[in-house]
Amino acid sequence: MNSRDPRYDILFEPVQIGPVTSKNRFYQTPYALGIGPHRYQDMVAFRQTRAEGGWGVVCVEETMIHPTSGHDPFQGPHLWSDADIGRVAPMAEAVHKYGALAGVELAHVGSSGPCWEHRGYPLSPTANPVRLHDNPIMTKQMDKRDIAQFRRWYVDAALRAKKADFDIVYVYCAHDLSLLQDFLVSRTNKRTDDYGGSFQNRIRLLREVLSDVKDAVGDRCAVAVRLAVEERRWKSSLNTREDGRRVIEELAEVPDLWDVNVSDWAWDTGSSRFFEEGHQEPFISFVKQVTSKPVVGVGRFTSPDAMVSQVKRGILDFIGAARPSIADPFLPNKIDTGLHDDIRECIGCNVCAAEVMNQTTIRCTQNPTAGEEFRLQWHPERVPPAGDPTRNILVVGGGPAGLQAALTLGKRGYQVSIAEAGENWGGRIVRERSLPRLATWGRVVDYRLALLQRMPNVQMYLASRLSAEDVLGMEPDHVIVATGSSWRRDGTGRSHDEPIPGADAAHVFTPDDIMAGKPVSGKVVVYDDDYYYMASALAEKLAREGNTVTYVTSASEPAPWTFKTLELGHVVQALLAAGVEIVTGTTLTAIEPGRVTAQRVLTGHSITLDADALVLVTCQNADETLYRELLERVEEGQLPSLDRTGDCVAPAFIAQAVRDGHRAAMSYDLPKDQ
Amino acid sequence: MNSRDPRYDILFEPVQIGPVTSKNRFYQTPYALGIGPHRYQDMVAFRQTRAEGGWGVVCVEETMIHPTSGHDPFQGPHLWSDADIGRVAPMAEAVHKYGALAGVELAHVGSSGPCWEHRGYPLSPTANPVRLHDNPIMTKQMDKRDIAQFRRWYVDAALRAKKADFDIVYVYCAHDLSLLQDFLVSRTNKRTDDYGGSFQNRIRLLREVLSDVKDAVGDRCAVAVRLAVEERRWKSSLNTREDGRRVIEELAEVPDLWDVNVSDWAWDTGSSRFFEEGHQEPFISFVKQVTSKPVVGVGRFTSPDAMVSQVKRGILDFIGAARPSIADPFLPNKIDTGLHDDIRECIGCNVCAAEVMNQTTIRCTQNPTAGEEFRLQWHPERVPPAGDPTRNILVVGGGPAGLQAALTLGKRGYQVSIAEAGENWGGRIVRERSLPRLATWGRVVDYRLALLQRMPNVQMYLASRLSAEDVLGMEPDHVIVATGSSWRRDGTGRSHDEPIPGADAAHVFTPDDIMAGKPVSGKVVVYDDDYYYMASALAEKLAREGNTVTYVTSASEPAPWTFKTLELGHVVQALLAAGVEIVTGTTLTAIEPGRVTAQRVLTGHSITLDADALVLVTCQNADETLYRELLERVEEGQLPSLDRTGDCVAPAFIAQAVRDGHRAAMSYDLPKDQ
Repeated sequence: MNSRDPRYDILFEPVQIGPVTSKNRFYQTPYALGIGPHRYQDMVAFRQTRAEGGWGVVCVEETMIHPTSGHDPFQGPHLWSDADIGRVAPMAEAVHKYGALAGVELAHVGSSGPCWEHRGYPLSPTANPVRLHDNPIMTKQMDKRDIAQFRRWYVDAALRAKKADFDIVYVYCAHDLSLLQDFLVSRTNKRTDDYGGSFQNRIRLLREVLSDVKDAVGDRCAVAVRLAVEERRWKSSLNTREDGRRVIEELAEVPDLWDVNVSDWAWDTGSSRFFEEGHQEPFISFVKQVTSKPVVGVGRFTSPDAMVSQVKRGILDFIGAARPSIADPFLPNKIDTGLHDDIRECIGCNVCAAEVMNQTTIRCTQNPTAGEEFRLQWHPERVPPAGDPTRNILVVGGGPAGLQAALTLGKRGYQVSIAEAGENWGGRIVRERSLPRLATWGRVVDYRLALLQRMPNVQMYLASRLSAEDVLGMEPDHVIVATGSSWRRDGTGRSHDEPIPGADAAHVFTPDDIMAGKPVSGKVVVYDDDYYYMASALAEKLAREGNTVTYVTSASEPAPWTFKTLELGHVVQALLAAGVEIVTGTTLTAIEPGRVTAQRVLTGHSITLDADALVLVTCQNADETLYRELLERVEEGQLPSLDRTGDCVAPAFIAQAVRDGHRAAMSYDLPKDQ
Repeated sequence: MNSRDPRYDILFEPVQIGPVTSKNRFYQTPYALGIGPHRYQDMVAFRQTRAEGGWGVVCVEETMIHPTSGHDPFQGPHLWSDADIGRVAPMAEAVHKYGALAGVELAHVGSSGPCWEHRGYPLSPTANPVRLHDNPIMTKQMDKRDIAQFRRWYVDAALRAKKADFDIVYVYCAHDLSLLQDFLVSRTNKRTDDYGGSFQNRIRLLREVLSDVKDAVGDRCAVAVRLAVEERRWKSSLNTREDGRRVIEELAEVPDLWDVNVSDWAWDTGSSRFFEEGHQEPFISFVKQVTSKPVVGVGRFTSPDAMVSQVKRGILDFIGAARPSIADPFLPNKIDTGLHDDIRECIGCNVCAAEVMNQTTIRCTQNPTAGEEFRLQWHPERVPPAGDPTRNILVVGGGPAGLQAALTLGKRGYQVSIAEAGENWGGRIVRERSLPRLATWGRVVDYRLALLQRMPNVQMYLASRLSAEDVLGMEPDHVIVATGSSWRRDGTGRSHDEPIPGADAAHVFTPDDIMAGKPVSGKVVVYDDDYYYMASALAEKLAREGNTVTYVTSASEPAPWTFKTLELGHVVQALLAAGVEIVTGTTLTAIEPGRVTAQRVLTGHSITLDADALVLVTCQNADETLYRELLERVEEGQLPSLDRTGDCVAPAFIAQAVRDGHRAAMSYDLPKDQ
């Protein structure tokens, strides 16, 4: 085993947090998994894997202190009754196995929870519409009795967390998703009693809860506050920097740890498309100047040098991480053993957040095992050895699915060949990483390539388009086809089951055309029937190249699926900044020279748009040709075994391709259903 | 006990379905509960209650035959592995306890399921974008091996259903939510092999699956088909009437039962706002002319006379019901015992569907016990007797919450007084039932009033506004305040945390003003920051009264919450038909004489709209005055006990008010948390 670079020793110093001590500075902050509340074993396995990977602190996500708190329909863990202790405690136990501290983020979501399942009334300092999901229901304005009850709930939940053997108990006041933040912010707190109005009144409940929780569990547990020091979405009322700083000045030495970030979630968990590593530093750098307590912050840190710099410059005591710990649970151990170049770096695509927004189990583009630790028993670093390591396996296609299949097969010890038709490794990512703001996605390729190129049992062939005959000539024991997909040219997709009239004209382009550099100029219409990133990225690119661009979508909002990746607002701002005109709720009806005709989805009214060029971003076709040909050879007995993976099955997210490539490599010699 | 009206005897005739026989013609069709897949006990209790209430057939909802089938994140029951049998079987067992037949709707949702949790690829006859939730992922186009596998899944699931002791096994081909319908419809099936193209090819898979399932379980189980005979949303390709009829002509005698409806869900489960009782008759009346097999259809039937007419006129053999069985599980027994006037009639508000769309447990406006059969052990007909029946309980407020509280307390045997300030019973429903299309909602009042007026232990006082002094003067042992709410006048709500400048002008109205008949004329702007029915109902009303109406909403779609009640498309059509102009994605910024200024949410651009009158539909204020005063009296020892319920806690759905009224009445003498 290699040894640690001494430059990084500082990251492995123990740090005291009130009555407990972390073995190092790697801190897995609380984040939601989209699991539960009925699948605690999955949560346990997920957190345990992070502890195994060397994080000094591993925290459990928002854990609700009362049934009136819940982002229903999304449900997660809770500690609102003593019966919950036995369900939550295994998470602390699993984390302790590896010498890490276990934290739990006790929360009440206030006016961002609609109380659907509880069927009570959501609570808030001031009566207002519930914030999430357009629910047309009001909150109950808390009276003094409700406030007293709320304080009791927090104490009771903290005592349960202590019984469950957690080391760090959080008081949650962040992300615009917390009752305590509702009290703190004058936009949501318009009370005229002791708990509203002045800063001292608005901070009162946070101070009281902190004090209550410290009194209740502070002898053995560290008490942490998670605080949004800045509201980047809203203009009003935390008075941004001043108030955020003032909260910490006021309560500087009260908690045992400050976990600080910016609000709301779309700004805290900023995607790489819009935010750089360490992007929160300007907003949280003051914190350590104000308190002597240890400070945790996040910033999608994957570079150990950046981490060291944060500590040395006095910005952070702990390197907080959510996404980097999803992408590489073994990030600390890799730095510790000198394998820092092998870190599976988060690409900041936010598909993890999207799964949570979807209310389905977390996944990760870089780490296909995320969320599968329990149900499939997949491990981020270990794979089962090859049943027969002399077997030759050929992977056709060097995109995300093919590279991952080759990597997993290589790790398993098979004799692997991978052939790519193009001049570069990466498939769709070769093209997509060159789009505006998407360069970081290239890490999907770079990480895999670096490992593959060091594997003696993996042969790699570029510029090698293989026919069925070529494949048979290589006499593989097994073939995995990963030939990817291409964008449709005829306009069919979500809104059109038949081609759009005129789609065969010369001034009509696909995303593949644009990414390949085909020239367009003048007035360009980019039509988005896909709803994710492609159309807005192309619109921005073409506008920045000097064209007059109109982005037209059949959806009611631009790029609506980017709401789930926390990007929608940022996408709109980027389009506007590039001078793109946005037309929503409109489908194309016909394409003519110089113009397109379109129809308003809502009213059926026709409109016309000038268009010297039109880019159709509707959907993709799987490239199944080689697979179909080889399938015949299998049926004829000329090829022993065949599988396919990724976009050539059905085009989807890069995360799906990577995940399915891993599946194909894991299931080769194991039974499978489909 | 009363006896049955002989006019209704025909409804209680036994009917044979293949190898099994139903004791009567009441047929609880499959419908989703928003429960699961981890809360099977809740599902069992729900279905058992319907069997107890007299339905001859009680069906379990869509039960998935394979993990590639799922409307993730919504998950329900499944029979995709033998391990599922033990979880699903208790539903059949519970239904059998009461002599009913148990049915199960085996389903594969094809291209309407994104495979999120399974992380495989959704299946469909032709590769296409997945239909639900804007997911930017494609389906996998099934090849012959996939089709063979699919047939095997259906057979395996049917065999499991038989093992679980179900009497009726469904093949599902409806609602635009089924792989079999994807094959049947030329819009979604563009195959060129034996399974696509001609009608005979498109029907092939349905025919094969039916035949497979009959072979597998037909000896003991009836095999039913649920078929959409008409697609009302889409213009293309089932060729509507002709193809629907042709399917039944082709397969007329193959299944043991035809369960027929129209597609998609928004047309099948049409809300009362847009559809009358029996609205599907014109589309399904041909079915019995084509097949000798028994026919089930739905139509929100709550009138026994309408049911008898359906049978006598040869339209239906079974009175299918989803919503009427949610609202009144005991509907058959009430008809059987001459209590047909006491049926708790479905109001067609579709809040049941909204909970399912929300992925939370089903609820019902009329029946507060729906969904609570297991977790709270609430029964639709039986309530626990009063702890002390001499206690006098005063309910203040005769809206939905107050009426329900009085009704439940009355049934429990308390001495109840209910006082209403207004001239009519019903609170908000007095006003809202007079809005266009909302008359059926009046059943919430009518049902409760009819029962209350027959209760000797309930005293009812209209036109009785009570002060705190009045309340104390009545010397009640307990008071439940249900004083409702009123619409805000200042524009604050979702989009404005401070009043909109100019909102105090004379030409600015609230919904309460309009419903009270305050005159408006000329150019009217209705501003919707509420997102449910109120703004669109008022816009339609004012337009039909001759005004020029512009509906402006801060949301990206008009009345977006009505998507959950399956009404959004119908709302838009109604607004357009009334001549209302629709402006989305726009918030008000200032109100001036004759006009309003507004801002585009997306771009920040300002616009101006002419407005002689402006109706602000933002949100509501709870009327807490009396409650606050009485709370002081409790603290001073002048009143023994106090609760409040419904909109005076926090304004929400009528369903929430009714449910909370029941809660207040059930929990008076029981321990409670908040």
